[in-house]
Amino acid sequence: MKFLRYGEKGSEKPGLVDTDGTLRDLSGIINDIAPETVASLPDKVKSLDLATLPTVDGKPRLGPCIARPGKFICIGLNYADHAAETGAEVPPEPVIFMKATSALTGPFDTVIKPRGSTKLDWEVELGIVIGKESRYVEEKDALSHIAGYCVINDVSERAFQLERHGTWDKGKGCDSFGPTGPWLVTPDEIEDPLTLSMWLTVNGHKYQDGSTRTMVYGPAFLISYLSRFMSLQPGDIISTGTPPGVGMGQKPPVYLNDGDVIELGIEGLGQQKQTVRDYDNL
Amino acid sequence: MKFLRYGEKGSEKPGLVDTDGTLRDLSGIINDIAPETVASLPDKVKSLDLATLPTVDGKPRLGPCIARPGKFICIGLNYADHAAETGAEVPPEPVIFMKATSALTGPFDTVIKPRGSTKLDWEVELGIVIGKESRYVEEKDALSHIAGYCVINDVSERAFQLERHGTWDKGKGCDSFGPTGPWLVTPDEIEDPLTLSMWLTVNGHKYQDGSTRTMVYGPAFLISYLSRFMSLQPGDIISTGTPPGVGMGQKPPVYLNDGDVIELGIEGLGQQKQTVRDYDNL
Repeated sequence: MKFLRYGEKGSEKPGLVDTDGTLRDLSGIINDIAPETVASLPDKVKSLDLATLPTVDGKPRLGPCIARPGKFICIGLNYADHAAETGAEVPPEPVIFMKATSALTGPFDTVIKPRGSTKLDWEVELGIVIGKESRYVEEKDALSHIAGYCVINDVSERAFQLERHGTWDKGKGCDSFGPTGPWLVTPDEIEDPLTLSMWLTVNGHKYQDGSTRTMVYGPAFLISYLSRFMSLQPGDIISTGTPPGVGMGQKPPVYLNDGDVIELGIEGLGQQKQTVRDYDNL
Repeated sequence: MKFLRYGEKGSEKPGLVDTDGTLRDLSGIINDIAPETVASLPDKVKSLDLATLPTVDGKPRLGPCIARPGKFICIGLNYADHAAETGAEVPPEPVIFMKATSALTGPFDTVIKPRGSTKLDWEVELGIVIGKESRYVEEKDALSHIAGYCVINDVSERAFQLERHGTWDKGKGCDSFGPTGPWLVTPDEIEDPLTLSMWLTVNGHKYQDGSTRTMVYGPAFLISYLSRFMSLQPGDIISTGTPPGVGMGQKPPVYLNDGDVIELGIEGLGQQKQTVRDYDNL
């Protein structure tokens, strides 16, 4: 099942894409795709004849595929070849950091270049949305805690992230730095989350062309590991790290500017497209 | 005005403490003290005759004084003398990190010592709750973005924080690591947030005995600064750092164990008290 949220920012409705690609409205079934509802969603929809759900006309804006996550957790340096390109070593255990939840945005929304930004960068990532409360979860049980997978662009401002003291948070949580979607894809549609091809282009040039095959710490381990340090709650997002090809890793580095167009996708999880705009040019 | 939330975990009701210390119920006026309501709360209450609000009998549990914050932002090393005790220098600009929102808990709830914890520590901090959306706020305007102040215990596991690779987040966001309250105190009650005495004891021994006077970056600067890196949203919490006297700074270091009792408070903002319990001893 491919769930989504459509409509204007802040008033999105829940929907799904049926097997022939038709967008159908779920607002008669559920209020929103959100922490309170994400666990029960597949069961509520399973028994429905999808053909009876109202179709949605036109091409509405898509919002992030999950509303109001309590946490937006990210994993750093989780692809060996990406770690190498940034000059870092693969850490002996996962590096975690947090993205501000206010960074969450739709998959086709504008990426806003903040004032003072000089090193705006991209990162295509496999996102996990948690389906049930998780504490000290065994790795063997961890996949059952996943509500779905999605595409995330972990937009990053490298100068804010690395040159402004303290943790990475200053360069990871700016508004619009978390395009998430288009769909929340239920795990039954993803045979193996560790064999998915993933890619990202800027202005048509392919910079990232990887696969989750080279991920160091996979989804089951990450959920088990994280659940030792904090409870994971329904609706929480985990962005699992990026393969090689970020702007900072180019020689010389390449960063994003007003007007640049980012496209990205992951096999089975859909595609995103964003245009970059300066904050003062919105 | 001193707002609070009372009742069992997950089903707290809004309330306030009136001028003679009586706890009164606000659930006829507002659903909860939460991001959606926190800005309008003082205006809704201002016109009321508080004596007409229902009184609450007994001594109910108090929840965190704000529900479901979108972000729980913390400032590191924001007291010169605390930086010195941890062997760090005061940074040239604020150090920010994030606490998992799932760490939020009531001011008298149990502090849970996670499995594997060996260096559980305390930090009394002045908390700010944001009242309105903030982007690129000028320092001179920043105080008007504050809905209220509160006491926060920024509970920290130093081994998780400092010895497990990556950012500090592993040692800051464990469940129960964010006791917040008892009250959300509106700014009109706090003449100057930079002259408040603050203290913390463990088993009756006073370890922290400071004042917000020695804070490096004050509330107005912090709001202005943070709003350049992320939008601040109503209900967001900013915990502004701790004065000297944390466990890690003792010679030799002192850490918390099952049964230890933490008490802490800030002038005008009330007091907290927590008992520490091992996760497997709850």
